[in-house]
Amino acid sequence: MNYFSSDFKLGILGGGQLGKMLLYNTRKFDINTSILDGSNEAPSKIACNAFTLGDLMDYDAVYNFGKQVNVLTIEIENVNVNALEDLEKEGVKVYPASKTLRTIQNKATQKLFYVDNAIPTAPFSRFAYTSEVKEAINNGGVTLPFVWKSAQFGYDGQGVKIVRTIADLDGLPNVECIAETLVPFKNELSVIVARSASGEVKSYPVVEMEFHPEANQVEYVICPARIDAEVAKKAEAVALKVSKSFNHVGLLAVEMFQTEADDILVNEVAPRPHNSGHQTIEASFTCQFEQHIRAILDLPLGRTDSKVGGVMVNLVGAEGYTGNVIYENIDAIMKMEGVTPHIYGKKQTRPFRKMGHVTIVNEDLNEARRVAEEVKKAIKVISA
Amino acid sequence: MNYFSSDFKLGILGGGQLGKMLLYNTRKFDINTSILDGSNEAPSKIACNAFTLGDLMDYDAVYNFGKQVNVLTIEIENVNVNALEDLEKEGVKVYPASKTLRTIQNKATQKLFYVDNAIPTAPFSRFAYTSEVKEAINNGGVTLPFVWKSAQFGYDGQGVKIVRTIADLDGLPNVECIAETLVPFKNELSVIVARSASGEVKSYPVVEMEFHPEANQVEYVICPARIDAEVAKKAEAVALKVSKSFNHVGLLAVEMFQTEADDILVNEVAPRPHNSGHQTIEASFTCQFEQHIRAILDLPLGRTDSKVGGVMVNLVGAEGYTGNVIYENIDAIMKMEGVTPHIYGKKQTRPFRKMGHVTIVNEDLNEARRVAEEVKKAIKVISA
Repeated sequence: MNYFSSDFKLGILGGGQLGKMLLYNTRKFDINTSILDGSNEAPSKIACNAFTLGDLMDYDAVYNFGKQVNVLTIEIENVNVNALEDLEKEGVKVYPASKTLRTIQNKATQKLFYVDNAIPTAPFSRFAYTSEVKEAINNGGVTLPFVWKSAQFGYDGQGVKIVRTIADLDGLPNVECIAETLVPFKNELSVIVARSASGEVKSYPVVEMEFHPEANQVEYVICPARIDAEVAKKAEAVALKVSKSFNHVGLLAVEMFQTEADDILVNEVAPRPHNSGHQTIEASFTCQFEQHIRAILDLPLGRTDSKVGGVMVNLVGAEGYTGNVIYENIDAIMKMEGVTPHIYGKKQTRPFRKMGHVTIVNEDLNEARRVAEEVKKAIKVISA
Repeated sequence: MNYFSSDFKLGILGGGQLGKMLLYNTRKFDINTSILDGSNEAPSKIACNAFTLGDLMDYDAVYNFGKQVNVLTIEIENVNVNALEDLEKEGVKVYPASKTLRTIQNKATQKLFYVDNAIPTAPFSRFAYTSEVKEAINNGGVTLPFVWKSAQFGYDGQGVKIVRTIADLDGLPNVECIAETLVPFKNELSVIVARSASGEVKSYPVVEMEFHPEANQVEYVICPARIDAEVAKKAEAVALKVSKSFNHVGLLAVEMFQTEADDILVNEVAPRPHNSGHQTIEASFTCQFEQHIRAILDLPLGRTDSKVGGVMVNLVGAEGYTGNVIYENIDAIMKMEGVTPHIYGKKQTRPFRKMGHVTIVNEDLNEARRVAEEVKKAIKVISA
């Protein structure tokens, strides 16, 4: 198929910020793009060829949209998978595959997939309802402390709670869930693997993620991770195995724990461009968004190594502020060396809402990390 | 003024490919953008907040558009300067200034500006009509060979001819023109200077341009230029002087000749992002489009040095092909190391039409240059 022709259409489910960054990269190749999103205010509207308003969880909306494109991809996992399955049967190329999305959408199923494929992951128990967990604790089936996770999809750390006492279970939704062993870890790592339709595979360097303790959101992403080469090699091998096990096409971000014993455990995956790859825009030979497009269009993959060291800082709404957003001191951070802000264009801020990110690049990663901390200290996402 | 607010509006005159690449970079800062262009098919339409159809040379079209924005910039020099002058008087920030555009739009006036400001440039004579040049040759005022240039603006080398015999003048339009001494040169160089509204200045490394002998279009841009450090220093100093003389705000691309005697002579300038800066997208710490936005919005300028060596290849329509474009072997070039194509999305090709560009980056500039030649050999912009 000639992707560089106006007869070809790429469809994207979801018109958020990831979709928008994906769209900028489709322009490099002059790819004809269509977006489906549930909001007329979708950020991607500004950068696509055609926009369709429709609910991503609605069978008809997804099916009818998908019938009009040649290749269909996603920027968010919460989409109607039955529609994708039917579209695949009817010849539409759907990346990631419906089967992969179905596995990932449920955290219990995702964990079972790792077990079935001999991929290291923290031990866990599965429950139909949170109410059953208490009983399991009482009869010794589950040991405190553990991590409670809602099986159905949670975004940005919602649906995850560390349970240290039985009382911590109070107030949690009574839904399908898992109780995962709380494994002490040194680092949270991520590897983005790109795999093309014809099976070419390239992985990005291992990155290190520092989380904000309260919001459970990534605060810094550091590329490359400051870890032993042996550990990095192990993490990369695990990530490649996950991508291969899913027979994945496109990007797969594999989030992992590096345990105290330097074991690697898969936490979860995202079958798309990911927050842990934003620094690739400035730091890598090929940015993750361009790479995803190359992969799903079965074009040759680009170099995944880095030109320079990169650190990414998430810009989230400051606590105590809700309303029309102001980026305080943005001039000050733009004065610092190697700093590029990416403002997502959301008009309203609220505590911990993702409002953008800032990339800091430098030949010396330690210097980039130092500047990142200055950026973090200086900028405040507040309201008017 | 708070640029990061929805009350602020940036206007761009011209909706071509440069405007489009500028727009992608406004998204980083969530700047509200409006475009004026004479064609409903303008490439920029896909990436702006608001699009106005109107003739860029028409006073009313430019004036009425300009009244609705806070800062006005251009992506093409051929615009109605009287309207810009009135907008400046009424408080709109116009970058580049109307005065600069008026000076640049006429090549004779531009040359006189260099003379007046002690900026080195090739000697020249000015004529009201081409017909007067023949007489000047006959009475010894002009010596063969020389470069004939139409004073009024020519695009992509139109309006320029090397005159070796009197017969070469036949067929040239009988317009205001200059006859410039043909100075033998080793290299054509370019330096892009960024200057912000409050006077902060940064210049990009000197780049080397290799021209296609027939089409008079840049074939390769090589960054940094493979020249002596002393010559580079001289070229940079001249470019900075030109920017300062214009009291310029925004990017100024200064094209220069390196003579056989290693003197630097200014050829011409472009007061905007420029073809000789496209490799900055992949190779530099701050791409030229982001830098232009930083400069005209009086934000701090970004680093102008390079992460890696960069070579840019223009993709122009092959001779003998006119019609619906096909990019033959695009897969093959994407397989090469460090190659990113930028396809501009023009549906029709014709000989020497600019259809896109390809950037090749590598830690080793010589390797990038080698791959660039392979790219050039492999890809063919032809028609169906």
